[in-house]
Amino acid sequence: MSSEKVQKLMQQMTIEEKIGQLIQLSADFFQDGQAVITGPMKASKLTLKTVYTVGSVLGISGASQVRKIQHDYLANSRLKIPLMFMADVVHGYQTIFPIPLALGASFNPETMKIASQVAAQESAAGGIHVTFAPMVDLVRDPRWGRVMESTGEDPYLNSVMAAASVRGFQGENLDNRHVAACVKHFAGYGAPEAGREYNTVDISEWRFREQYLPAYQAAIDAQALLVMTSFNTLFGVPATANQHLMRDILRKELKFDGVLISDWDAIAELINHSVAGDLQTAADLALKAGVDIDMMAFAYSKYLQKAASLDAKTAELIDESTQRILELKDQLGLFDDPYRGVSEVREHNEIKTSENLKAAQTAAEESVVLLKNQGHVLPLTNTTNVALIGPVADTGDLLGSWSWQGRTDETTTIREALTAQMPHLKYAMGSHYRAINLADMKNAINIARQQDVIVAVWGLPSSESGEATSLTDIKLPAEQLQLLHELAKLNKPIVSVIIAGRPLDLTEVTALSDAILFAWFPGSKGANAVSRILLGQVNPSGKLPMTFPRSVGQVPIYYNHYRTGRPITNTPEDAENKYQSKYIDELNSPLYPFGFGLSYAEIMIDSVKLAATTIATTDQLQVKVTLTNHSAVAGKTVIETYAHQNVAETVRPVESLIDFEKVSLNGNESKTFTLTIPCSRLANIHLDLSKQVDAGQYSLLVGLDSANLITVPFTLE
Amino acid sequence: MSSEKVQKLMQQMTIEEKIGQLIQLSADFFQDGQAVITGPMKASKLTLKTVYTVGSVLGISGASQVRKIQHDYLANSRLKIPLMFMADVVHGYQTIFPIPLALGASFNPETMKIASQVAAQESAAGGIHVTFAPMVDLVRDPRWGRVMESTGEDPYLNSVMAAASVRGFQGENLDNRHVAACVKHFAGYGAPEAGREYNTVDISEWRFREQYLPAYQAAIDAQALLVMTSFNTLFGVPATANQHLMRDILRKELKFDGVLISDWDAIAELINHSVAGDLQTAADLALKAGVDIDMMAFAYSKYLQKAASLDAKTAELIDESTQRILELKDQLGLFDDPYRGVSEVREHNEIKTSENLKAAQTAAEESVVLLKNQGHVLPLTNTTNVALIGPVADTGDLLGSWSWQGRTDETTTIREALTAQMPHLKYAMGSHYRAINLADMKNAINIARQQDVIVAVWGLPSSESGEATSLTDIKLPAEQLQLLHELAKLNKPIVSVIIAGRPLDLTEVTALSDAILFAWFPGSKGANAVSRILLGQVNPSGKLPMTFPRSVGQVPIYYNHYRTGRPITNTPEDAENKYQSKYIDELNSPLYPFGFGLSYAEIMIDSVKLAATTIATTDQLQVKVTLTNHSAVAGKTVIETYAHQNVAETVRPVESLIDFEKVSLNGNESKTFTLTIPCSRLANIHLDLSKQVDAGQYSLLVGLDSANLITVPFTLE
Repeated sequence: MSSEKVQKLMQQMTIEEKIGQLIQLSADFFQDGQAVITGPMKASKLTLKTVYTVGSVLGISGASQVRKIQHDYLANSRLKIPLMFMADVVHGYQTIFPIPLALGASFNPETMKIASQVAAQESAAGGIHVTFAPMVDLVRDPRWGRVMESTGEDPYLNSVMAAASVRGFQGENLDNRHVAACVKHFAGYGAPEAGREYNTVDISEWRFREQYLPAYQAAIDAQALLVMTSFNTLFGVPATANQHLMRDILRKELKFDGVLISDWDAIAELINHSVAGDLQTAADLALKAGVDIDMMAFAYSKYLQKAASLDAKTAELIDESTQRILELKDQLGLFDDPYRGVSEVREHNEIKTSENLKAAQTAAEESVVLLKNQGHVLPLTNTTNVALIGPVADTGDLLGSWSWQGRTDETTTIREALTAQMPHLKYAMGSHYRAINLADMKNAINIARQQDVIVAVWGLPSSESGEATSLTDIKLPAEQLQLLHELAKLNKPIVSVIIAGRPLDLTEVTALSDAILFAWFPGSKGANAVSRILLGQVNPSGKLPMTFPRSVGQVPIYYNHYRTGRPITNTPEDAENKYQSKYIDELNSPLYPFGFGLSYAEIMIDSVKLAATTIATTDQLQVKVTLTNHSAVAGKTVIETYAHQNVAETVRPVESLIDFEKVSLNGNESKTFTLTIPCSRLANIHLDLSKQVDAGQYSLLVGLDSANLITVPFTLE
Repeated sequence: MSSEKVQKLMQQMTIEEKIGQLIQLSADFFQDGQAVITGPMKASKLTLKTVYTVGSVLGISGASQVRKIQHDYLANSRLKIPLMFMADVVHGYQTIFPIPLALGASFNPETMKIASQVAAQESAAGGIHVTFAPMVDLVRDPRWGRVMESTGEDPYLNSVMAAASVRGFQGENLDNRHVAACVKHFAGYGAPEAGREYNTVDISEWRFREQYLPAYQAAIDAQALLVMTSFNTLFGVPATANQHLMRDILRKELKFDGVLISDWDAIAELINHSVAGDLQTAADLALKAGVDIDMMAFAYSKYLQKAASLDAKTAELIDESTQRILELKDQLGLFDDPYRGVSEVREHNEIKTSENLKAAQTAAEESVVLLKNQGHVLPLTNTTNVALIGPVADTGDLLGSWSWQGRTDETTTIREALTAQMPHLKYAMGSHYRAINLADMKNAINIARQQDVIVAVWGLPSSESGEATSLTDIKLPAEQLQLLHELAKLNKPIVSVIIAGRPLDLTEVTALSDAILFAWFPGSKGANAVSRILLGQVNPSGKLPMTFPRSVGQVPIYYNHYRTGRPITNTPEDAENKYQSKYIDELNSPLYPFGFGLSYAEIMIDSVKLAATTIATTDQLQVKVTLTNHSAVAGKTVIETYAHQNVAETVRPVESLIDFEKVSLNGNESKTFTLTIPCSRLANIHLDLSKQVDAGQYSLLVGLDSANLITVPFTLE
């Protein structure tokens, strides 16, 4: 169906039918295959007739359910416009991949693409048309629980991952094994003040464009078909009512012509935000800002019809939104097959296949980060006498937030995965997540005393990760630290494995552990990945996508901060100069920097060479990086390339990631990699808010983490 | 001398002489009454001839020195333009008042005015012409050490205090018992990221105008004659090079026509900031931004002459700056008497007089905040058997940062002040600030065991308060907490007195103390004030000018935050609703809210009445507040009036202080106070950045702290 055909269809639609397309309802309105209005849904004041005009529903899945509901819906719909099914499929449908922050840690866009592809394939088989992903919000505050859903603190890493994810979800041509992607949350949701969920966001527009906008832009450039408004305020106005953000920036500048959907109830929340006195005004503000779909605020259903009758402009905006939604349905092929080929057979064949599970395991193996490995305590051998301890050692709670179709009860635990390979392993829980009793602790210490190496699996439950899980304290719970302190008294090697959805203050854990493996929420096959890494069957290669602070008192801390007038110089003079940008009770540096992650191999950079050190602003940098693996173990690492601009109209970051490449080296191999980096990645935002590449002096900084870099100066002209 | 005479003088000046006026040197260039260039000053590349053209010097004081230097300077100056002496006289010259944050806690503009008056009078007698005060930067992060120099987190409180301070320093007509005030730091220095000194500041211009700009504006409206640029970046450009900030906002909008001075070396720091490649460019950027005086960067001295020869516009800007500086000298009366009547006799008669010291004591008595007084453990009686413990109990380190002419060695300690009144008092230090030994601790516990009440004086040294003292940990040092825990085991009443320049995490102190007196750095007579409050000779009346968090994980936390879309409702439903703007491990509320402070009296609000609940936006609110003192003790409190606007173009704060009045009640007295509040205080910043009062629905919220308020709705039309 062409856009003209959509136009033709629109000519047949009543205003009620058009507004219907702009409404999204929750699964509660469709039960046992039928539209219903019962219980709390009555507050919506919807009639059953209206429900049969709504454009989309969220949170329903399963071929049988979806077929029944679509069938019933079409039977009751005058114009037979298919219902669109949307859902939060973030890092997997039934095959759960590592959380997005872990996928960020893979520094491997292919890993992200495959994760999104598999999620798309499985959820499309489950009857879903649109997923509320990827979330590309830049995040810098580990107090905010939803950092787990982002790929981290860097604009470039986020941009690459955003594009990879959109391509994975949507495929080449959005066939029925793919779903439409909804980029969220536009914009700035990742910067809530004090890390408190839904709190005010305030960023200057200049900085917003430098650091926050690029990932949204990359997702839209990758043809993401939907965008979701964010809950927060930006530039003084909640995003859902923010005309400057949505009209000027999203639609005009970013040239986004897809569907803009509100977040859950966000239109009604304009009242709480104090920018609307009532729901009618809220509906009006959202429509004017360009919000096409009202998700569960019932603002459009209650007020748009009256508003359209009073104001031709409103009617026009409704038409615009209707058209966008119908075109999306058309792109999804729903007018050709409202069921998009779903069936229980297909579900059975395409969901949780061994191939998908293998991909999930590979993704976990790519994303686990080795933070410490003193005395090469890792890898272990199968015959090591291991005491396995800790609240997360024998639980399936490894999937993380946003894995509603995942089954923790069917998920292999780390204990199960390790036991299968290590005959001498002994296990004792020792401590719950946030509770401990003396008997458990004593038992764990006894077991540990009998064995040679302690592998302790610490962390937070998935209920303390994700939306609405802000924490003021980002240490491991005191009970776990208490057990760790007791274990440390045994003077045996301690390997700490951490399961968590955010950077933690690992200062004490680092002091008391010989090795630390940060495993995020690693997904359905995460336990196997962790087990294989512990045993050296896989060499870890993840790198941190967010800076790990020494304590919450350093937050926000991130690598690409702007230069200050009084920087520390890392010379002996620092000690004598009080008047520097620093703390008097703590270092400025983080505990673990962005881009950091160890390997069992010993890969080092030998040299960094630029083909030309003076090039045109429109040209590209040609960089040759030679690495040598000084060990016999094959391994992967990430060549991280940063840039620094010496002088500009505005202050510049100390360094900014402009390229990364995950590379493999065999044991004792030397290898040269050629990087081609367009100079457009050196663009910065000027005071007139234009994005331009400046002529001038720069430095290229290349390393295997953000804190240890080889510098090569160059000039753009 | 009129402006025309300044013009005439300028006609005689060479370009070198004009540029000289734009240079400020440190005291090092004038030693033993003479200009010198020795040691590190040689790096300035100045000649002695140039030194005799410079317009001002900072950090010199004392009648004899100043007279000598001025005499030598004039003898060597061709046009006999007097040298101007500037210094950091922040909260007292030799008579040290409580730190500005404490003066904020007085909620008494008269206290602030007198503090500035006395500081002006003493420093003027000491030969100083200009003080680098008041600092009016809004502050919300207790990690930043320089919060001590601000009056706190509220735009209105800061505005009132800023104006009072300027009036105190400058007097009615800037006679020779007054000094010119230099408002600092323009702008936004109080919001460094992560509380790290000199770090990046990023605020949207909308929010900057709502919350940060008002106090600067108030100081300028009060005729402050100078403004200092801030070290930080704002809107992407360091303030010292920020044309939008200085030309558009400061000069045009705020109509500031006085002298703009850089902070120390700030022009050279434009290079570190990455907006200038060399010092010549830095000089050019600063001059173009409108910076009249270069403090110690030697950028103007090295490069302006050449720049002026190449560019007529530069010569014009130099003329403008020269004229402003000469006019300031004229306003100070320096052309009539370059010595401004200073003499050693005047110094002797006017500095540290008993009257001044009494004023400092009154200020301290007004600013100490009683945070807790369980079981009415305070006040004590003279005969109470007190064990006085703690590292700050017997030290003169009570003056705080920026009291360079204060003498800690001559300052009465709390032990001395209390001992004079309490014959049974026994003292043991128990702990150093950040060190403890077993013998000291045991001794303190023994002493405490023998007595009935423990008065423990905790805190931080002044070296951990003020510029360049950022902390990641805002608890009392662990050693002090350890001692407090030991003392608590004795089960005796504990009165904790805290000496500190910032809000601290007092969660543990609160749990372990029966009473808490937060005394800031209370100044020369602070010990006497504390002692009199402990004994009930003075009833405490200070209120917190900054919110005290429960832990650093809540930072930034402040009372006038913007409304969010998902607020907690303080109803039982909160417990069941995860999806709210909150933490899962901590309350949203602070430990002690803004505006909070107890009294020995029991004063409560009986009623709040508005004369009219519908009034014009151009009118004023007439409010009658009736208070009753339900105790026999006379006391003071602060009637705090906040407003809330229901709906606006942008999000609105939950409440904003629009008026405060410190009032006294006798024992058992009821009294009605009439407040007249112009509606202009309800203005908010619109999306076009204009400041307007909107018609619409509002609430008036009246209370004795920001968290317990009586609400009265009203309408503006």
